Amino acid sequence: MPGSTHPRCAILDTLDALGNLWSLGILRCVFFGQNRYNQIQTELGISTNVLAARLNALVEGGILERKPYQVRPLRHEYVLTAKGADLGPALVALRDWGRHHLDGDLGPLTHRSCGGDVTAQVRCDRCGDTVEASQVVSADALASSG
Amino acid sequence: MPGSTHPRCAILDTLDALGNLWSLGILRCVFFGQNRYNQIQTELGISTNVLAARLNALVEGGILERKPYQVRPLRHEYVLTAKGADLGPALVALRDWGRHHLDGDLGPLTHRSCGGDVTAQVRCDRCGDTVEASQVVSADALASSG
Repeated sequence: MPGSTHPRCAILDTLDALGNLWSLGILRCVFFGQNRYNQIQTELGISTNVLAARLNALVEGGILERKPYQVRPLRHEYVLTAKGADLGPALVALRDWGRHHLDGDLGPLTHRSCGGDVTAQVRCDRCGDTVEASQVVSADALASSG
Repeated sequence: MPGSTHPRCAILDTLDALGNLWSLGILRCVFFGQNRYNQIQTELGISTNVLAARLNALVEGGILERKPYQVRPLRHEYVLTAKGADLGPALVALRDWGRHHLDGDLGPLTHRSCGGDVTAQVRCDRCGDTVEASQVVSADALASSG
Protein backbone atom coordinates (compact mmCIF):
# COMPACT_ATOMS: atom_id res chain seq x y z
CA MET A 1 0.00 0.00 0.00
CA PRO A 2 2.24 2.78 -1.24
CA GLY A 3 1.78 6.09 0.51
CA SER A 4 0.94 4.61 3.88
CA THR A 5 2.21 6.77 6.72
CA HIS A 6 1.36 4.35 9.50
CA PRO A 7 3.67 3.78 12.42
CA ARG A 8 5.02 0.24 12.61
CA CYS A 9 2.20 -2.27 12.44
CA ALA A 10 2.80 -5.83 11.34
CA ILE A 11 -0.53 -6.07 9.53
CA LEU A 12 0.04 -2.93 7.47
CA ASP A 13 3.67 -3.89 6.85
CA THR A 14 2.49 -7.26 5.58
CA LEU A 15 -0.01 -5.61 3.24
CA ASP A 16 2.82 -3.36 2.00
CA ALA A 17 4.99 -6.43 1.40
CA LEU A 18 2.24 -8.20 -0.54
CA GLY A 19 1.63 -5.15 -2.72
CA ASN A 20 -1.83 -6.10 -3.89
CA LEU A 21 -4.44 -8.83 -3.66
CA TRP A 22 -3.17 -10.60 -6.78
CA SER A 23 -0.21 -11.73 -4.68
CA LEU A 24 -2.55 -13.70 -2.43
CA GLY A 25 -4.33 -15.10 -5.47
CA ILE A 26 -1.00 -16.27 -6.92
CA LEU A 27 0.03 -17.82 -3.61
CA ARG A 28 -3.31 -19.62 -3.42
CA CYS A 29 -2.54 -21.18 -6.83
CA VAL A 30 0.95 -22.29 -5.82
CA PHE A 31 -0.35 -23.68 -2.51
CA PHE A 32 -2.71 -25.94 -4.43
CA GLY A 33 -0.17 -27.14 -6.97
CA GLN A 34 -0.63 -24.71 -9.85
CA ASN A 35 3.06 -23.86 -10.04
CA ARG A 36 3.51 -22.81 -13.64
CA TYR A 37 3.01 -19.44 -15.25
CA ASN A 38 0.36 -20.65 -17.69
CA GLN A 39 -1.56 -22.50 -14.98
CA ILE A 40 -1.65 -19.42 -12.77
CA GLN A 41 -2.56 -17.16 -15.68
CA THR A 42 -5.45 -19.44 -16.68
CA GLU A 43 -6.66 -19.85 -13.10
CA LEU A 44 -6.71 -16.16 -12.25
CA GLY A 45 -7.53 -14.65 -15.65
CA ILE A 46 -4.89 -12.04 -14.88
CA SER A 47 -3.11 -10.01 -17.57
CA THR A 48 0.35 -11.31 -18.38
CA ASN A 49 2.15 -8.07 -17.51
CA VAL A 50 0.48 -7.88 -14.09
CA LEU A 51 1.22 -11.55 -13.45
CA ALA A 52 4.88 -11.20 -14.45
CA ALA A 53 5.30 -8.15 -12.22
CA ARG A 54 3.63 -9.86 -9.25
CA LEU A 55 5.67 -13.05 -9.67
CA ASN A 56 8.90 -11.04 -9.83
CA ALA A 57 7.92 -9.12 -6.69
CA LEU A 58 7.12 -12.36 -4.85
CA VAL A 59 10.48 -13.87 -5.90
CA GLU A 60 12.36 -10.69 -4.93
CA GLY A 61 10.50 -10.68 -1.62
CA GLY A 62 11.67 -14.22 -0.89
CA ILE A 63 8.11 -15.56 -0.86
CA LEU A 64 8.36 -17.65 -4.03
CA GLU A 65 11.34 -19.35 -5.63
CA ARG A 66 11.82 -19.96 -9.37
CA LYS A 67 12.93 -23.53 -10.15
CA PRO A 68 13.67 -25.03 -13.57
CA TYR A 69 11.51 -28.02 -14.48
CA GLN A 70 12.69 -28.34 -18.09
CA VAL A 71 16.04 -27.49 -19.70
CA ARG A 72 15.39 -27.30 -23.48
CA PRO A 73 13.82 -24.87 -23.72
CA LEU A 74 14.41 -23.63 -20.18
CA ARG A 75 11.14 -23.46 -18.24
CA HIS A 76 10.59 -22.53 -14.62
CA GLU A 77 7.93 -23.19 -12.07
CA TYR A 78 7.25 -21.36 -8.84
CA VAL A 79 7.50 -22.95 -5.42
CA LEU A 80 6.92 -21.57 -1.96
CA THR A 81 9.88 -20.69 0.22
CA ALA A 82 9.52 -21.28 3.96
CA LYS A 83 8.61 -17.59 4.21
CA GLY A 84 5.90 -18.09 1.59
CA ALA A 85 4.57 -21.26 3.20
CA ASP A 86 4.10 -19.26 6.41
CA LEU A 87 1.31 -17.35 4.66
CA GLY A 88 -0.69 -20.61 4.74
CA PRO A 89 -2.70 -19.69 7.84
CA ALA A 90 -3.72 -16.37 6.25
CA LEU A 91 -4.95 -18.17 3.12
CA VAL A 92 -6.83 -20.76 5.18
CA ALA A 93 -8.43 -17.95 7.22
CA LEU A 94 -9.52 -16.12 4.06
CA ARG A 95 -10.95 -19.37 2.73
CA ASP A 96 -12.84 -20.06 5.97
CA TRP A 97 -14.41 -16.62 5.69
CA GLY A 98 -15.46 -17.17 2.08
CA ARG A 99 -17.00 -20.52 2.95
CA HIS A 100 -19.08 -19.00 5.72
CA HIS A 101 -20.04 -15.67 4.24
CA LEU A 102 -20.15 -15.92 0.45
CA ASP A 103 -22.53 -17.81 -1.77
CA GLY A 104 -21.48 -21.14 -3.11
CA ASP A 105 -21.12 -24.71 -2.08
CA LEU A 106 -17.45 -24.72 -1.24
CA GLY A 107 -15.76 -27.76 0.23
CA PRO A 108 -13.58 -27.77 3.32
CA LEU A 109 -9.82 -28.00 3.43
CA THR A 110 -8.61 -31.33 4.66
CA HIS A 111 -5.79 -32.61 6.87
CA ARG A 112 -3.82 -34.92 4.59
CA SER A 113 -2.94 -37.50 7.23
CA CYS A 114 -6.29 -37.92 9.01
CA GLY A 115 -8.87 -36.51 6.57
CA GLY A 116 -10.36 -34.10 9.11
CA ASP A 117 -11.44 -30.57 8.20
CA VAL A 118 -8.89 -27.84 8.90
CA THR A 119 -9.70 -24.26 9.83
CA ALA A 120 -7.71 -21.22 10.95
CA GLN A 121 -8.24 -20.39 14.59
CA VAL A 122 -6.96 -17.63 16.81
CA ARG A 123 -5.54 -19.35 19.87
CA CYS A 124 -4.03 -18.14 23.10
CA ASP A 125 -0.57 -19.58 23.74
CA ARG A 126 -1.07 -19.27 27.50
CA CYS A 127 -4.58 -20.56 28.30
CA GLY A 128 -5.06 -22.56 25.09
CA ASP A 129 -8.49 -21.07 24.38
CA THR A 130 -9.82 -20.22 20.94
CA VAL A 131 -10.05 -16.43 21.07
CA GLU A 132 -12.81 -14.23 19.60
CA ALA A 133 -11.71 -11.15 17.66
CA SER A 134 -13.20 -8.86 20.30
CA GLN A 135 -10.92 -10.44 22.91
CA VAL A 136 -7.72 -9.68 21.00
CA VAL A 137 -5.83 -6.50 21.86
CA SER A 138 -2.38 -5.32 20.86
CA ALA A 139 0.04 -5.54 23.77
CA ASP A 140 0.76 -1.81 23.48
CA ALA A 141 -2.93 -0.95 23.81
CA LEU A 142 -3.27 -3.20 26.85
CA ALA A 143 -0.27 -1.53 28.54
CA SER A 144 -1.56 2.00 27.90
CA SER A 145 -5.04 1.21 29.20
CA GLY A 146 -3.73 0.15 32.54
CA MET B 1 -9.94 -9.18 -8.56
CA PRO B 2 -12.02 -8.21 -11.55
CA GLY B 3 -11.53 -10.36 -14.60
CA SER B 4 -10.88 -13.54 -12.67
CA THR B 5 -12.15 -16.57 -14.55
CA HIS B 6 -11.52 -19.08 -11.78
CA PRO B 7 -13.98 -21.81 -10.97
CA ARG B 8 -15.46 -21.52 -7.49
CA CYS B 9 -12.74 -21.15 -4.89
CA ALA B 10 -13.42 -19.62 -1.51
CA ILE B 11 -10.02 -17.92 -1.33
CA LEU B 12 -10.39 -16.23 -4.71
CA ASP B 13 -14.03 -15.36 -4.00
CA THR B 14 -12.91 -13.75 -0.74
CA LEU B 15 -10.25 -11.71 -2.55
CA ASP B 16 -12.94 -10.65 -5.06
CA ALA B 17 -15.18 -9.60 -2.17
CA LEU B 18 -12.42 -7.57 -0.52
CA GLY B 19 -11.61 -5.81 -3.80
CA ASN B 20 -8.14 -4.64 -2.84
CA LEU B 21 -5.66 -4.63 0.01
CA TRP B 22 -6.85 -1.29 1.34
CA SER B 23 -9.95 -3.13 2.56
CA LEU B 24 -7.79 -5.21 4.90
CA GLY B 25 -5.93 -2.07 6.01
CA ILE B 26 -9.23 -0.37 6.85
CA LEU B 27 -10.47 -3.44 8.72
CA ARG B 28 -7.21 -3.55 10.68
CA CYS B 29 -7.88 0.05 11.81
CA VAL B 30 -11.46 -0.68 12.86
CA PHE B 31 -10.35 -3.84 14.68
CA PHE B 32 -8.00 -1.77 16.80
CA GLY B 33 -10.49 0.99 17.59
CA GLN B 34 -9.80 3.54 14.87
CA ASN B 35 -13.44 3.78 13.84
CA ARG B 36 -13.67 7.22 12.34
CA TYR B 37 -12.99 8.40 8.83
CA ASN B 38 -10.28 10.87 9.87
CA GLN B 39 -8.55 8.33 12.10
CA ILE B 40 -8.44 5.76 9.32
CA GLN B 41 -7.32 8.34 6.77
CA THR B 42 -4.48 9.50 9.03
CA GLU B 43 -3.44 5.96 9.91
CA LEU B 44 -3.31 4.67 6.35
CA GLY B 45 -2.27 7.83 4.50
CA ILE B 46 -4.84 6.87 1.88
CA SER B 47 -6.42 9.34 -0.54
CA THR B 48 -9.90 10.46 0.52
CA ASN B 49 -11.61 9.25 -2.66
CA VAL B 50 -10.08 5.77 -2.38
CA LEU B 51 -10.99 5.61 1.32
CA ALA B 52 -14.58 6.71 0.69
CA ALA B 53 -14.98 4.13 -2.10
CA ARG B 54 -13.51 1.33 0.03
CA LEU B 55 -15.66 2.20 3.06
CA ASN B 56 -18.79 2.24 0.90
CA ALA B 57 -17.88 -1.13 -0.58
CA LEU B 58 -17.29 -2.60 2.88
CA VAL B 59 -20.64 -1.25 4.11
CA GLU B 60 -22.44 -2.53 1.00
CA GLY B 61 -20.73 -5.89 1.45
CA GLY B 62 -22.07 -6.15 5.00
CA ILE B 63 -18.56 -6.14 6.49
CA LEU B 64 -18.75 -2.73 8.18
CA GLU B 65 -21.72 -0.81 9.54
CA ARG B 66 -22.07 2.97 9.68
CA LYS B 67 -23.26 4.23 13.08
CA PRO B 68 -23.91 7.83 14.13
CA TYR B 69 -21.82 9.02 17.07
CA GLN B 70 -22.87 12.68 16.88
CA VAL B 71 -26.10 14.32 15.70
CA ARG B 72 -25.28 18.01 15.07
CA PRO B 73 -23.61 17.87 12.68
CA LEU B 74 -24.31 14.24 11.87
CA ARG B 75 -21.13 12.17 12.10
CA HIS B 76 -20.69 8.45 11.65
CA GLU B 77 -18.18 5.89 12.71
CA TYR B 78 -17.58 2.44 11.31
CA VAL B 79 -18.04 -0.74 13.30
CA LEU B 80 -17.56 -4.36 12.36
CA THR B 81 -20.57 -6.51 11.64
CA ALA B 82 -20.39 -10.17 12.68
CA LYS B 83 -19.35 -10.90 9.09
CA GLY B 84 -16.54 -8.34 9.37
CA ALA B 85 -15.41 -9.61 12.76
CA ASP B 86 -15.02 -13.05 11.19
CA LEU B 87 -12.08 -11.65 9.20
CA GLY B 88 -10.21 -11.41 12.53
CA PRO B 89 -8.30 -14.68 12.06
CA ALA B 90 -7.08 -13.54 8.63
CA LEU B 91 -5.79 -10.27 10.09
CA VAL B 92 -4.11 -12.07 12.99
CA ALA B 93 -2.50 -14.49 10.51
CA LEU B 94 -1.19 -11.61 8.38
CA ARG B 95 0.16 -9.96 11.49
CA ASP B 96 1.89 -13.15 12.65
CA TRP B 97 3.61 -13.36 9.27
CA GLY B 98 4.78 -9.75 9.43
CA ARG B 99 6.15 -10.26 12.92
CA HIS B 100 8.19 -13.27 11.83
CA HIS B 101 9.31 -12.24 8.39
CA LEU B 102 9.57 -8.46 8.20
CA ASP B 103 11.98 -6.12 9.91
CA GLY B 104 10.85 -4.36 13.01
CA ASP B 105 10.33 -4.95 16.68
CA LEU B 106 6.63 -5.63 16.61
CA GLY B 107 4.77 -6.66 19.73
CA PRO B 108 2.44 -9.64 20.00
CA LEU B 109 -1.31 -9.58 20.10
CA THR B 110 -2.71 -10.36 23.50
CA HIS B 111 -5.67 -12.28 24.91
CA ARG B 112 -7.61 -9.67 26.85
CA SER B 113 -8.71 -11.94 29.67
CA CYS B 114 -5.46 -13.78 30.45
CA GLY B 115 -2.72 -11.64 28.88
CA GLY B 116 -1.25 -14.50 26.84
CA ASP B 117 -0.01 -14.05 23.29
CA VAL B 118 -2.47 -14.98 20.56
CA THR B 119 -1.57 -16.37 17.15
CA ALA B 120 -3.48 -17.77 14.18
CA GLN B 121 -3.08 -21.50 13.82
CA VAL B 122 -4.35 -23.98 11.29
CA ARG B 123 -5.96 -26.78 13.28
CA CYS B 124 -7.57 -30.04 12.39
CA ASP B 125 -11.10 -30.38 13.77
CA ARG B 126 -10.76 -34.17 13.91
CA CYS B 127 -7.34 -34.93 15.42
CA GLY B 128 -6.79 -31.53 17.06
CA ASP B 129 -3.29 -31.15 15.64
CA THR B 130 -1.77 -27.89 14.46
CA VAL B 131 -1.39 -28.48 10.73
CA GLU B 132 1.51 -27.40 8.50
CA ALA B 133 0.62 -25.79 5.16
CA SER B 134 2.08 -28.76 3.28
CA GLN B 135 -0.39 -31.07 5.06
CA VAL B 136 -3.46 -29.13 3.92
CA VAL B 137 -5.27 -30.28 0.79
CA SER B 138 -8.62 -29.32 -0.66
CA ALA B 139 -11.17 -32.08 -0.21
CA ASP B 140 -11.72 -32.21 -3.97
CA ALA B 141 -8.03 -32.79 -4.64
CA LEU B 142 -7.91 -35.56 -2.03
CA ALA B 143 -10.91 -37.32 -3.62
CA SER B 144 -9.47 -37.13 -7.13
CA SER B 145 -6.09 -38.50 -6.05
CA GLY B 146 -7.78 -41.57 -4.65
